[in-house]
Order: sequence, then structure tokens, then C-alpha cells
Amino acid sequence: MTSDFPAVTVLGLGSMGSALAAALLDRGHPTTVWNRSAAKAEPLVAKGARLAATVEEAIAASPLTIACVLDYAALRGVLEPAAGALAGRTLVNLTSGAPEQAHEAVAWFRAQGAGYLDGAIMTTPPGVGSPEVMILYSGAPAVFETCRPTLAALGDPLYLGEDPGLASLYDAALLGLMWSTMTGWLHGTALVGAEGTAATAFTPIAIRWLGTVNRFLTTYAPQVDAGRYPGDDATVDVQIAAIDHLIHAAAARGVDNALPELLKDFMERARAAGHGSDSYASVIEVLKSPADGR
Amino acid sequence: MTSDFPAVTVLGLGSMGSALAAALLDRGHPTTVWNRSAAKAEPLVAKGARLAATVEEAIAASPLTIACVLDYAALRGVLEPAAGALAGRTLVNLTSGAPEQAHEAVAWFRAQGAGYLDGAIMTTPPGVGSPEVMILYSGAPAVFETCRPTLAALGDPLYLGEDPGLASLYDAALLGLMWSTMTGWLHGTALVGAEGTAATAFTPIAIRWLGTVNRFLTTYAPQVDAGRYPGDDATVDVQIAAIDHLIHAAAARGVDNALPELLKDFMERARAAGHGSDSYASVIEVLKSPADGR
Repeated sequence: MTSDFPAVTVLGLGSMGSALAAALLDRGHPTTVWNRSAAKAEPLVAKGARLAATVEEAIAASPLTIACVLDYAALRGVLEPAAGALAGRTLVNLTSGAPEQAHEAVAWFRAQGAGYLDGAIMTTPPGVGSPEVMILYSGAPAVFETCRPTLAALGDPLYLGEDPGLASLYDAALLGLMWSTMTGWLHGTALVGAEGTAATAFTPIAIRWLGTVNRFLTTYAPQVDAGRYPGDDATVDVQIAAIDHLIHAAAARGVDNALPELLKDFMERARAAGHGSDSYASVIEVLKSPADGR
Repeated sequence: MTSDFPAVTVLGLGSMGSALAAALLDRGHPTTVWNRSAAKAEPLVAKGARLAATVEEAIAASPLTIACVLDYAALRGVLEPAAGALAGRTLVNLTSGAPEQAHEAVAWFRAQGAGYLDGAIMTTPPGVGSPEVMILYSGAPAVFETCRPTLAALGDPLYLGEDPGLASLYDAALLGLMWSTMTGWLHGTALVGAEGTAATAFTPIAIRWLGTVNRFLTTYAPQVDAGRYPGDDATVDVQIAAIDHLIHAAAARGVDNALPELLKDFMERARAAGHGSDSYASVIEVLKSPADGR
């Protein structure tokens, strides 16, 4: 098999690993795959992937191996018996984990003589391969620069810095933003739904509104960096008055209010800390000083 | 004073009311203003507004009056003594309130022989006048159609329906989405900030990520309407595993975890209700069935 694109190996063929291998095949990369249960490889082999019989064979097939398994413990279980095959090769780890796990991993791979990047895929499997999708990477910059053209097959590669824990840290922060946003959307959808508005009618308006919210975030980011939160546009006091309308409207319609009540509690703690006339960005001071001193 | 644009009156010159009057003046509308303390009118008079001495005089000056005061009680206090001036005129109420207050208001204005629309301004005062900004309206469709060209001076007018409470209901739902999103963003900003990333570095990535989240909302909206939540892309079980990474990473850095812990609780309640293999959209079933039976 000859190709203009370098060979790549993918370890782990869950729904995300399979999407990664498929995107590499679509781009024209000679792609070797391995999975603990080989049956998962069948659709990829049908697309032209080569199935390796062992992890060693899989790693030996390509200068770059991409791993996407359940967690770091599973990664260790897969790679430790095959450690001898890693010298001189690069492993890009797209397994989800904590920043501390990325730090441990980079040390272990260095000891094997292997290059290492830690990454986080900022989409679900159906989104893999789209240039709109961000894939975050952290680790040695020279390793990233070498891999970047290949990694571009998976999505837009975004390099965060040399600390290998950054991709996991950003991943956690961005997923938290996602869950908050999705739950706020579901709460609003339940509220308007109680009066007969369909989710498909509400959602385009919600998405347009998030464009305005993005402008608030852009306004507030330099306030956070400066530690000063001028309430020129809307103050914490004004937001506290407004959230009562939400809490009453939701309570009257039988919608769970734990989320807006928690948000109101943050705002009231910000006001108690002297931020009543400041912007909503001042709520970060509360988040940085947990109530129970954790 | 002659103008191609109809005369408009603005009652209430707080920061939002002043922004509304300024946008009307900028568009060329002959604009009459009134405020309980007349001093607030000075910058608008300098821009060409006419200051009315009384509420009656203000209402009589224009076919359309826009009111933006503290709350519905303040609106009643302003308008009841001047009720005789309202017959044959239209009042657009951009005062924040609850859907039930809009229902009461429409009945009262009907009794005065006045047209009535309820509205909600989906921006802060600096955003007023931009065609990108949504202003939501609900009430009699004929009244909306008559006022629409004038209301376009304030932002893009979006008509929600005849029930006058819809604008307030959507306002509450969208503000809830805003607070959830802003707090999720602040939590993530605090998390990456603990490792030295500036808010101004994290925020463009967060905003780009929200574009991906918007695609998830668009995928999930028809699931909500159908009451079926196929977990093709990512299941509640997968999200529960992932949120533990966020909770651990934030706890290790002294960031308050009440928000992700609440979100995890919702996910676990969805799993307990049989939605472990469903998409995140299934969490709406939990929100529609509050834990404490409220």
C-alpha cells in the first residue's frame, strides 16, 4: 500500500476510536488498528484498515500511534506489555483523564524513549473529522509540530502549551461549560414547554441568544483577568431581582428549581462579598472561595 | 418638529429606558420622555427629546408609548393616575415581570381602551438599537404589526404569539440559560486560571466550543419534542463518568464544585429513571419531575 499520507495506528475501537480510524482512512492514511476484541475492527477493515494481531505489531506499523481507550488504567494495561515497541515512536493519547494522569503518562513515555502528546476531542464521535471541531493538544511543541498534519484529519488541532495536563484541564473546563449550558437550556425548554412551546421552536431563539451571551463573556473575560468587575451593563443586584422571576415562573409550572436556586445563591454570596454593584463576572470570586472551605 | 418617523413616548429613564429613548432619537423619531425625577432626562433633551411635565402629557404626545420602569407595581403607580389619557393609544411594556403580571396588565389596558404589547429586551442597555439584538414581543398580532416598524429602532423585533405572557416566559427561560452558561464559563475560567491560563485566553476557545454545543442543542431539541432520547452520540452514563474528572480537577484546585455536583445529581437521577443509555436531553425528564415534588 502506498500513500502520500503517513501511516497511523489507532489503539482502541470504541465508538470514538472507530470514528478516529475512519477519519484517517477517509483522508487516505494507511491505518493500522487494534482492539482487545477484534470484532470491532470489522467495519474499519472493510474500509481498508489493517488489523494488527498484537499491540506490539500495531505500534511497530506506524511512526504515530493514537490511543483512545476507556481510561488511563486501561491504557496502561494495553501498553505496558508492549513497552519495548515504543522507543523512537510517538503516542498521542486521546483517552479522557485528569491533568495529573497526563503528567504521569508523559514521564512513563519519556522513560520508554517515546514522544507523547495528550489530547482531548471536543465533539462526540459523529463530529470527528470535521474541520470545525476542535481537538486540543498539549505536550512537547516539537512533537506537536511533527504530528500536526496527520492530526488535522481528525479535526482542527489546537495546541495549548507544553504542560501535558493542559488538554485534560481545558477538556474538563469546557465540558463543565457544556453541561451547564445544556442544563440551562433544558430548564428553559421545560419552562416554555409547560405553556406549549415546542423545543424545536424555542431552541433557535436560545441559540441566537447565546450569541449575545458570547458577547457578555467577551466583555467579562478582561474583567476577570483584572480582578475588577465594573457593573456598567448589568449588576449582580439587578440579576438577583431578575432571577426571582425565573424561580417563580418555574415553580408555578412544576419545573425543578435547584439550578436557578444555586445560581441565585452564588449571586447572593457575591453581593454579600461586596459585589452587588459589580458585573456578573464578580461571581468568579465566590467560585474561587468555596463556601465550605474545600 | 417634522419627521418621516412616528412620534414615540418613553416612560421611565433608568439606564434601559434612556437607551431606548436614545435609540429612537438616533433613528429620527420625535421622542417625548418622562421620568419621575426629571434630571434623568437631561442627556436625552440635549439629543432632541421633548420632556413632558406629566405622564398624561407624555402619553398624549404620541400614538405609541413605551414603558420601562422598575416593575409592574411601579408601572401601575405611574399609569393609574393617568389612565384617562390611554384610550385609543398603544402601550408597549418593556418592564421586566412575570407572565401572570402580563395577563393582568393586558386586561387593565383593554379596560382603558388601549392596545397593549408585552416585551422583553434581550440585551443590556449598551446593546439597545443593534439589529443583532432580539427584543421579544407578545400580545395582539394586529397591535404588533402596527408597532413593528417603530420597534425595529430598538433591536430586531421577534413576535412570539398572542398570549401576552409569552415574552416574560421566554425572557425568564433565556435569562436562566444565560446565568447557567455564564456560571459554567466562570467555573471553567476559575479552573484553567488555577494553572495560569488567562480568562482572555480561555474565552475564545470557550466561545468556539459553544458553537459545537449549539449543534448538540439542535440535535436534542427534536428528541425533547418526541420524548425519546437515543444516545447515539454520548450517553448519560458516559457524561457521568466524564463529570468526575471535572469534579476532581476542580476540587484539587480549590474551585467550588456545587455547580458540577448539582449537574451530576441531575444525571444520576436521569440514570436512576432508566436513561443511562439515553442522550443528555433525557435530563429534562428529571427537571419536569422535581425531586421534592414541588
